[in-house]
Amino acid sequence: MGPTPEWEVSEWLGTPPAETLAGLRGRVVVIEAFQMLCPGCVSHGLPLARKVHSTLADEVVVIGLHTVFEHHEAMTPVSLKAFMHEYRVTFPVGVDTPHGHGMPMTMQRWGLQGTPTLIVVDRGGRLRAQAFGTVDELALGGALGSLLAEETVEWSAGRSRGMTGRRAG
Amino acid sequence: MGPTPEWEVSEWLGTPPAETLAGLRGRVVVIEAFQMLCPGCVSHGLPLARKVHSTLADEVVVIGLHTVFEHHEAMTPVSLKAFMHEYRVTFPVGVDTPHGHGMPMTMQRWGLQGTPTLIVVDRGGRLRAQAFGTVDELALGGALGSLLAEETVEWSAGRSRGMTGRRAG
Amino acid sequence: MGPTPEWEVSEWLGTPPAETLAGLRGRVVVIEAFQMLCPGCVSHGLPLARKVHSTLADEVVVIGLHTVFEHHEAMTPVSLKAFMHEYRVTFPVGVDTPHGHGMPMTMQRWGLQGTPTLIVVDRGGRLRAQAFGTVDELALGGALGSLLAEETVEWSAGRSRGMTGRRAG
Amino acid sequence: MGPTPEWEVSEWLGTPPAETLAGLRGRVVVIEAFQMLCPGCVSHGLPLARKVHSTLADEVVVIGLHTVFEHHEAMTPVSLKAFMHEYRVTFPVGVDTPHGHGMPMTMQRWGLQGTPTLIVVDRGGRLRAQAFGTVDELALGGALGSLLAEETVEWSAGRSRGMTGRRAG
Repeated sequence: MGPTPEWEVSEWLGTPPAETLAGLRGRVVVIEAFQMLCPGCVSHGLPLARKVHSTLADEVVVIGLHTVFEHHEAMTPVSLKAFMHEYRVTFPVGVDTPHGHGMPMTMQRWGLQGTPTLIVVDRGGRLRAQAFGTVDELALGGALGSLLAEETVEWSAGRSRGMTGRRAG
Repeated sequence: MGPTPEWEVSEWLGTPPAETLAGLRGRVVVIEAFQMLCPGCVSHGLPLARKVHSTLADEVVVIGLHTVFEHHEAMTPVSLKAFMHEYRVTFPVGVDTPHGHGMPMTMQRWGLQGTPTLIVVDRGGRLRAQAFGTVDELALGGALGSLLAEETVEWSAGRSRGMTGRRAG
Repeated sequence: MGPTPEWEVSEWLGTPPAETLAGLRGRVVVIEAFQMLCPGCVSHGLPLARKVHSTLADEVVVIGLHTVFEHHEAMTPVSLKAFMHEYRVTFPVGVDTPHGHGMPMTMQRWGLQGTPTLIVVDRGGRLRAQAFGTVDELALGGALGSLLAEETVEWSAGRSRGMTGRRAG
Repeated sequence: MGPTPEWEVSEWLGTPPAETLAGLRGRVVVIEAFQMLCPGCVSHGLPLARKVHSTLADEVVVIGLHTVFEHHEAMTPVSLKAFMHEYRVTFPVGVDTPHGHGMPMTMQRWGLQGTPTLIVVDRGGRLRAQAFGTVDELALGGALGSLLAEETVEWSAGRSRGMTGRRAG
């Protein structure tokens, strides 16, 4: 298993934790891919990411990724900035680089199925979970607790505790 | 008590139930004043309006009023249209006529304190309740049941059952 | 439509509002039939009755009826008393007179299907709604608002607004 | 840090996972101390224990402990049995040995402050968390994931991730 491919971000809102994902090697990283007008992102995905951020901020790096693949004209960075202010999103959010009116660059590269998708990267930079839809909080906590206990260098195959994402069609 | 002043709408999304509020004389009307990026509107105000619409649609006219008084550039009609699609808002929504970057026209005229605000107009066209913030569902049902029982023509002073709106500062 | 048959209560916890249902003529009455170990009663039925009691206490009489039809030995008046204390039930509760290990007397007489069941009696003593299972708060409010607007003496057929009870079997 | 003192159980409902806590050495154990008529236990403590049981059943042993310290006559084993049936409690529950009308034996020995209390014992039999009141699901998951990653034999001081229990008085 190789490292997770790099993100491609056209603009950051808030201070990015690093220029590249590789720059976060040694940390457990949670990335919430969302769209500001996606109801499931607003009611479930972002509140969960916010909770990881407030509960485990010292140990887990939380990042938002605005992966706009529909209603592009309604979800511009200007609108996103107002959204983040109103919804008190305090972790940094990168705008996934647009690719015309289709799926943005990182979303394509990572093969995301839709929004919200929660992505977990381990200390070694490896993708360990990618869950589309609803993620169970207890199971997510279990997975993160387990990943935090892993050494950075020494790689153990480690069973991945399943997260109950709702898969698309 | 005179009739409720007219709304001033620059654009309708969905088919308006009437050109003017006066045109709805004889009906009980619920108007939900909201902003698409206001968290309390998304989590509380609009779901309640949607519930009145689905539960009492035959008897009560439900209308949304998009009263943008902040982040104007982030809540344009284009964004609102995407929002209504994603959040399955099926009742008609009027865009309150903008007045520069301040409070829009109807919001000023009706003296609204913020969003969400739920407004109830009786069969006689009189304003019977204007509740800013959280509205209790049981109390709202009680008020509507009582208003529906009133005759159009004959006006009875009728105690207005209080709705527990959260008042602003 | 004749008057609702009388209840048959072996014991009251709290001060009963009247000796008989007939004694409440002129008032709108809500009766919550429940069992203390029924999960749907604890999570839905009793909180709704408590809400009617706190929101409309001046206008609507709220009464609990403990209709034990299973686990009789686990839901004695001694246990019920502790339950009412712990769950802060402040409206009076009558113990439906037991009939061996089957359905108690009032439950039989009123033809209740299970618990929770919410019963609404109008000012004229007539049964106007009997809803088994989940009752929608907005619809209940609407029904009560409408009944409160009715005159006691003059009987109007009045369409009964449907309450969305979950029917058994 | 020595091993957690043994429980003292007068009766088991369901099949106990072991005669003694010592018999569970090598496993991570979650014990939910509750009373069947405690509202916080019904709405929060037991649902959380049930969730650990269904989500992590292969890895974590979940046990209920009925620690009756009030309303003794209302929460007898007969009533508890009906409660477990109605609330679908499928993990085994031990009745904490009564001590007159005061706090039962295990509750005293473990110094529990009230109900609900969630207790976590690690693979080495050591008490690692004891949280009275509300426990955050994400934090609990994190703590369990971390404990599951620990070796049985080798004891590491390991920082204990805080669980947000509500402390009494």
